[in-house]
Amino acid sequence: MTTILVLHGPNLNLTGHREPETYGRTTLSEINEQLQVRATERGAETRPFQSNHDGALIDTLHEARDWAAGALFNPGAFTHYSYALRDAVAAVGYPVIEVHLSLPAAREPFRRVSVIAPVCRGQVAGFGPYSYLCALDALLHLLDSGG
Amino acid sequence: MTTILVLHGPNLNLTGHREPETYGRTTLSEINEQLQVRATERGAETRPFQSNHDGALIDTLHEARDWAAGALFNPGAFTHYSYALRDAVAAVGYPVIEVHLSLPAAREPFRRVSVIAPVCRGQVAGFGPYSYLCALDALLHLLDSGG
Amino acid sequence: MTTILVLHGPNLNLTGHREPETYGRTTLSEINEQLQVRATERGAETRPFQSNHDGALIDTLHEARDWAAGALFNPGAFTHYSYALRDAVAAVGYPVIEVHLSLPAAREPFRRVSVIAPVCRGQVAGFGPYSYLCALDALLHLLDSGG
Amino acid sequence: MTTILVLHGPNLNLTGHREPETYGRTTLSEINEQLQVRATERGAETRPFQSNHDGALIDTLHEARDWAAGALFNPGAFTHYSYALRDAVAAVGYPVIEVHLSLPAAREPFRRVSVIAPVCRGQVAGFGPYSYLCALDALLHLLDSGG
Amino acid sequence: MTTILVLHGPNLNLTGHREPETYGRTTLSEINEQLQVRATERGAETRPFQSNHDGALIDTLHEARDWAAGALFNPGAFTHYSYALRDAVAAVGYPVIEVHLSLPAAREPFRRVSVIAPVCRGQVAGFGPYSYLCALDALLHLLDSGG
Amino acid sequence: MTTILVLHGPNLNLTGHREPETYGRTTLSEINEQLQVRATERGAETRPFQSNHDGALIDTLHEARDWAAGALFNPGAFTHYSYALRDAVAAVGYPVIEVHLSLPAAREPFRRVSVIAPVCRGQVAGFGPYSYLCALDALLHLLDSGG
Amino acid sequence: MTTILVLHGPNLNLTGHREPETYGRTTLSEINEQLQVRATERGAETRPFQSNHDGALIDTLHEARDWAAGALFNPGAFTHYSYALRDAVAAVGYPVIEVHLSLPAAREPFRRVSVIAPVCRGQVAGFGPYSYLCALDALLHLLDSGG
Amino acid sequence: MTTILVLHGPNLNLTGHREPETYGRTTLSEINEQLQVRATERGAETRPFQSNHDGALIDTLHEARDWAAGALFNPGAFTHYSYALRDAVAAVGYPVIEVHLSLPAAREPFRRVSVIAPVCRGQVAGFGPYSYLCALDALLHLLDSGG
Amino acid sequence: MTTILVLHGPNLNLTGHREPETYGRTTLSEINEQLQVRATERGAETRPFQSNHDGALIDTLHEARDWAAGALFNPGAFTHYSYALRDAVAAVGYPVIEVHLSLPAAREPFRRVSVIAPVCRGQVAGFGPYSYLCALDALLHLLDSGG
Amino acid sequence: MTTILVLHGPNLNLTGHREPETYGRTTLSEINEQLQVRATERGAETRPFQSNHDGALIDTLHEARDWAAGALFNPGAFTHYSYALRDAVAAVGYPVIEVHLSLPAAREPFRRVSVIAPVCRGQVAGFGPYSYLCALDALLHLLDSGG
Amino acid sequence: MTTILVLHGPNLNLTGHREPETYGRTTLSEINEQLQVRATERGAETRPFQSNHDGALIDTLHEARDWAAGALFNPGAFTHYSYALRDAVAAVGYPVIEVHLSLPAAREPFRRVSVIAPVCRGQVAGFGPYSYLCALDALLHLLDSGG
Amino acid sequence: MTTILVLHGPNLNLTGHREPETYGRTTLSEINEQLQVRATERGAETRPFQSNHDGALIDTLHEARDWAAGALFNPGAFTHYSYALRDAVAAVGYPVIEVHLSLPAAREPFRRVSVIAPVCRGQVAGFGPYSYLCALDALLHLLDSGG
Repeated sequence: MTTILVLHGPNLNLTGHREPETYGRTTLSEINEQLQVRATERGAETRPFQSNHDGALIDTLHEARDWAAGALFNPGAFTHYSYALRDAVAAVGYPVIEVHLSLPAAREPFRRVSVIAPVCRGQVAGFGPYSYLCALDALLHLLDSGG
Repeated sequence: MTTILVLHGPNLNLTGHREPETYGRTTLSEINEQLQVRATERGAETRPFQSNHDGALIDTLHEARDWAAGALFNPGAFTHYSYALRDAVAAVGYPVIEVHLSLPAAREPFRRVSVIAPVCRGQVAGFGPYSYLCALDALLHLLDSGG
Repeated sequence: MTTILVLHGPNLNLTGHREPETYGRTTLSEINEQLQVRATERGAETRPFQSNHDGALIDTLHEARDWAAGALFNPGAFTHYSYALRDAVAAVGYPVIEVHLSLPAAREPFRRVSVIAPVCRGQVAGFGPYSYLCALDALLHLLDSGG
Repeated sequence: MTTILVLHGPNLNLTGHREPETYGRTTLSEINEQLQVRATERGAETRPFQSNHDGALIDTLHEARDWAAGALFNPGAFTHYSYALRDAVAAVGYPVIEVHLSLPAAREPFRRVSVIAPVCRGQVAGFGPYSYLCALDALLHLLDSGG
Repeated sequence: MTTILVLHGPNLNLTGHREPETYGRTTLSEINEQLQVRATERGAETRPFQSNHDGALIDTLHEARDWAAGALFNPGAFTHYSYALRDAVAAVGYPVIEVHLSLPAAREPFRRVSVIAPVCRGQVAGFGPYSYLCALDALLHLLDSGG
Repeated sequence: MTTILVLHGPNLNLTGHREPETYGRTTLSEINEQLQVRATERGAETRPFQSNHDGALIDTLHEARDWAAGALFNPGAFTHYSYALRDAVAAVGYPVIEVHLSLPAAREPFRRVSVIAPVCRGQVAGFGPYSYLCALDALLHLLDSGG
Repeated sequence: MTTILVLHGPNLNLTGHREPETYGRTTLSEINEQLQVRATERGAETRPFQSNHDGALIDTLHEARDWAAGALFNPGAFTHYSYALRDAVAAVGYPVIEVHLSLPAAREPFRRVSVIAPVCRGQVAGFGPYSYLCALDALLHLLDSGG
Repeated sequence: MTTILVLHGPNLNLTGHREPETYGRTTLSEINEQLQVRATERGAETRPFQSNHDGALIDTLHEARDWAAGALFNPGAFTHYSYALRDAVAAVGYPVIEVHLSLPAAREPFRRVSVIAPVCRGQVAGFGPYSYLCALDALLHLLDSGG
Repeated sequence: MTTILVLHGPNLNLTGHREPETYGRTTLSEINEQLQVRATERGAETRPFQSNHDGALIDTLHEARDWAAGALFNPGAFTHYSYALRDAVAAVGYPVIEVHLSLPAAREPFRRVSVIAPVCRGQVAGFGPYSYLCALDALLHLLDSGG
Repeated sequence: MTTILVLHGPNLNLTGHREPETYGRTTLSEINEQLQVRATERGAETRPFQSNHDGALIDTLHEARDWAAGALFNPGAFTHYSYALRDAVAAVGYPVIEVHLSLPAAREPFRRVSVIAPVCRGQVAGFGPYSYLCALDALLHLLDSGG
Repeated sequence: MTTILVLHGPNLNLTGHREPETYGRTTLSEINEQLQVRATERGAETRPFQSNHDGALIDTLHEARDWAAGALFNPGAFTHYSYALRDAVAAVGYPVIEVHLSLPAAREPFRRVSVIAPVCRGQVAGFGPYSYLCALDALLHLLDSGG
Repeated sequence: MTTILVLHGPNLNLTGHREPETYGRTTLSEINEQLQVRATERGAETRPFQSNHDGALIDTLHEARDWAAGALFNPGAFTHYSYALRDAVAAVGYPVIEVHLSLPAAREPFRRVSVIAPVCRGQVAGFGPYSYLCALDALLHLLDSGG
């Protein structure tokens, strides 16, 4: 069975609790459940993980080399400076999709550039929790078509 | 019925014919057909338009105010400098999703920044023609949820 | 009779319809009419033209060499990057006044710099439709004094 | 009666005496007189003040809160770096119009950016002494229309 | 009782042991004790936490939402690049004061800018251990006055 | 008796009157009085001075060499560009504390950097009028401990 | 027969009429005729096209894929910012030579960089109309040698 | 006996497994073994540690103050932004040598600058696993000569 | 008789009293006396003026148009940002020599650039009080040779 | 007889031997011979000189003032930073054409800008050895037409 | 026998004589002797060359193509701007190791970037004369392992 | 006897022959003679040297360590980029004065910054040949006063 790593970066554990006008009211558990439902419909499964530690995110990306066919990754604010995460994404080999709830480009100037995107396969941003569902579809499509 | 403008910017008329290692082999007509099929399944319709003239793209964005519930927009290289298109997107009121076949962030440095994204609602990039299908789903979801 | 070209750039056809808190509620036709009235009082006439195409704006600037004594020009967002329009203004010989409804300097940072102003004779900005009337007065004054 | 502060910044006391190819031959007194005539025609009055001291310009902006309905302000070279003047303009509440004899954008690169404009209501530049007259008209229009 | 989180970032565990000419000879425990004494005098209490891991600092900021009325935060070198900590401070809701033993602005150029300050309520720097005491006073004052 | 110079820069004379949402409603006289009360409690005295002229601020810094043990200095917008004030602070020898009512780092980008801080001993910002009281405590502490 | 596209960008229709001290007095028709004569001598032919619209230039580059062996392209001021033209040149496959009448590098700083050159095969600039003739020779040489 | 800390930063646990054309096929354990052999020959010993967490690297640098005479440190991608690691290296007192398998300067532009090098004693890069052996020699030489 | 304005900018009144390792121990009066002696020997006279107010410096530059054949000007820290002083120097017509006691280029990076030098005739820096004497010689030489 | 200096900068002595995929296989002697043949056909002669020393290139440019009617100059990597060569080209008076085998603009970013071009008369680049022949034609044309 | 070019750039002839606190007291001859001893032990030989002329360094790099298996190169200050040396290193084909006595990254900001390193195989810096010995070992190791 | 090195950089051999509007009509020999006369009057002697090779300038600076008490140095365009010359000046120990005929700050922007000045003792610029005489006086004064 196709297994997809779903990786959530710093502060995303507060999703649904903080700044709802920006991030909406759906919690991270609810997002993870919606993803699992969608994956099951498509004959796949998801394994979610959240951490505020970039080291833990890197460890998880490494470990998933044994079982993940691909990953959805919302790096939170690490998007804008963590070259260590960039190197991890570049090293693991399986396709990684960068996902964001809001549209970083529409916020503060420092959010205009992603240092991780250059080593990703795709990006989906701006649709709230639906960004993840949309990215899951696209990733499974990519894997199906041999991508 | 929900009508979605599908707007393709400069050089996209060559899609499937030029640099297939970057942009794939599916032609623009085929992409437009796939979008129409998907839209029909969802009870919507799409109206595609392509131009290499930014003025024509602006005109089309303006005219669609009468009939479009939202738009998928691949601004091609205008993404990186056309403040006039940015103002048009900001002016029309309906939600616009920025779409790219490849991942601009993974290419030349001048493609790192989109001047149009700050006034869009979402972004989907990197999945080839599937970027459009994924963006259509997300846009219809957005419209359904009152977005 | 002194004839003045009144040239409106991209998205200005929506004036009065879009973002009224920024641009006011007077339409472009109304602005053109007010200008014609004022010109007539001063023994002059105005010929308005609007386009979202920078090529069409350049063509018009060129053609007006045959009949225009000067021009009022609101380049919209082209203000900030169209070196082709700059070259056209530099080439035509008659005096051109840059006009803006709002005050670009008070908006996003990319609106701080005009690439067209260095080849203009004057600038008027921030007074809504009255910016055009004020600029017309100043241009006629300039022409009267042999400017 | 509507009273307008007319504030001239550094080196403008030499207007008409220095670099006439850039600034013309009309002196500052003559400009002030022309403004007073125009104001009287419009049922208003003007109170001119010139200083080479930014502190004195700030003091005057503050004091005018008691009697000025608005101000015409030519900040001279302070335009390009005096954040203290910017804060004063932002603090006083009445509308301030930035005025220049020549067109700063057409001169040295350091004159491209005004740090004061972002807190002004309008800008008029490039018409020599007529810049002030034009700005007076626009300011009175603004005040008449409840601006 | 008002409880204040006292959060110390990377390398601050060495305070009093490293580079005493820059950071003084008081140890972190001594600083924490002084803070507790001062807090008790003011009818409050402090809970100190130090970590060299930005993830652990983020976790602590999140957890303190349940019990902290505010926080004193010395982010150490994270001050200058950790957008993840910035997002955490922005997310938690209670007021956070940025504290530094030395004056970063007086040191290397990369220490001129704090990416965290824009989402803090106040800053105190340069007084050695007394920076914390001073910041505690100010934070309690802020909380007393409904800040 | 220990005498402390309290120096207020441009526009601070309007404190309590302008933009109260940013600067609060306490006037400068009230701040000066609160400082005097606090100083008296600590066996010290304060001498306040405000000017919108950077020259006058420099003169005052110089003259205070005869009687001041230290200074609290809110340079207002001069913070961001007055290298002349920086040189004055560097020249006078007694310790100077930079004070701000609001948190400049949380406002416009040009307020991110202080050119004066590198020659100060400490900084306190963001607590409204309490910033001054807090800074007075810290300065007296510094002087007591041989600062 | 070898056919060469000769593409002239914005404002070049005025060549020979505007700013003769910079661009000389030969008109565009005369340049086109000289090119045709030279091409005939070499057993080739040229097809000239001029437009002030970047979209029209892109369309022409695309259409010429059916008949052009190569192109001479003077992009005028589009040289400095039109990434859309750059993408078109990159997409068409046949060799494109960038040509300029004057030497952009010797003019304003914004003319120092060409965004189109990185996807061209060669550059000739500074020889007035002879730049085109020289570039024609070089392009035909390139095609002869299998370039 | 002289003990040397050998510290490996993020993603180096994958050495030998990822991108072998860049990093070679020797694993991290093999590198650590080679180092131990070399150290033993020189009458010293090495203690290797790897982590993807910058906090853990800082903790290790701190703890090694009790037993390390010096350190070899490959900070991986932290090289380019971790000011917290820089402060840790500056704080610990013993000499630290920056080591890289490949030559960062020959890769992406963001790898041109090391924020850690300014507080190191030496740098060795580009020799694959031999970089570490070479750095060990140099560090022992430095320690022998009282460095 | 040739009269030379000797103009000293901010903080120079402290010369000889502050930071003697940078500026030496000669006072400003002593420098002025030495200049007068030297001028007398050369059949000229000097009129010194010092102010910490840029407005006063501008006023003096203006007034000296009536009697000065040239000026020695040490703008102190105004060197690096006072465009108002630059405009004054450009406006007055007589030759101005920029003088510095120390060598600004050898100090902090912000002292690398003079905004005033581009409108001066010469520069002398780095010789302590002798910089003024040397500049006086050079200025008189310039005036003698019709400069 | 018209004599043309042909000046080759650093590393061009290796032409034909190094990196043939970039610079081709024709040697410098062969290029010089082809130029001499072409010059003879046109009734002119060429004098080639190559050096890896910028001083020697400057000396040669100076000496050629006695006999050269113009120069072809390939400055190699000096193109991008040798302001001394730029000054030499500006000083010699005869027209200089910048020539490159490859197209610098299509290579590394540091090759985008030529510091020498602003003082040249023309540029030819990208045609391999034919760049020199083409530049010779253009230079002789320039000299014939009185350029 | 393996022969290694040892190339020393500008000012290195003074090594041991100038600024000993930065560069140590060992002279260049002593360094060259130590290298020869070490090379002999390894069955290799070294040929040292020093010049203050970049042209001479380029000439030597070129000539050594006939006999050198590799090179140790300390480019001195040319490290930071000599693109001509960079091109020479790129052209010669044999591996070049950049060597520095001190650690440039720990000195002035302009020493942070090496324009030569991107075309080198390795770097060793910061160990004084031992940098060369260490680099020799590493280069011989590289050559032994098929480099 | 005090001997002063007089060092002239690239293109200065043409002084008096090239661009007289910028550099005057006095030749370099004449300048050298005037310096020798002045030196003799002061009981000193000068040894002039000119080269267009930066290596030769460095060699001369080194050799003069045996006999020069100080140097006047006009580095020509090397002023703006030759870090190798900067290192030579820093290494030689005797005081070096930077001299320019014209005022570089008043010319092209790239001439605003001197990379050599930070290691010089003084600067004189803008007085034509008299710059050298003035610098000689200042240098001798410096040497007399133990500088």
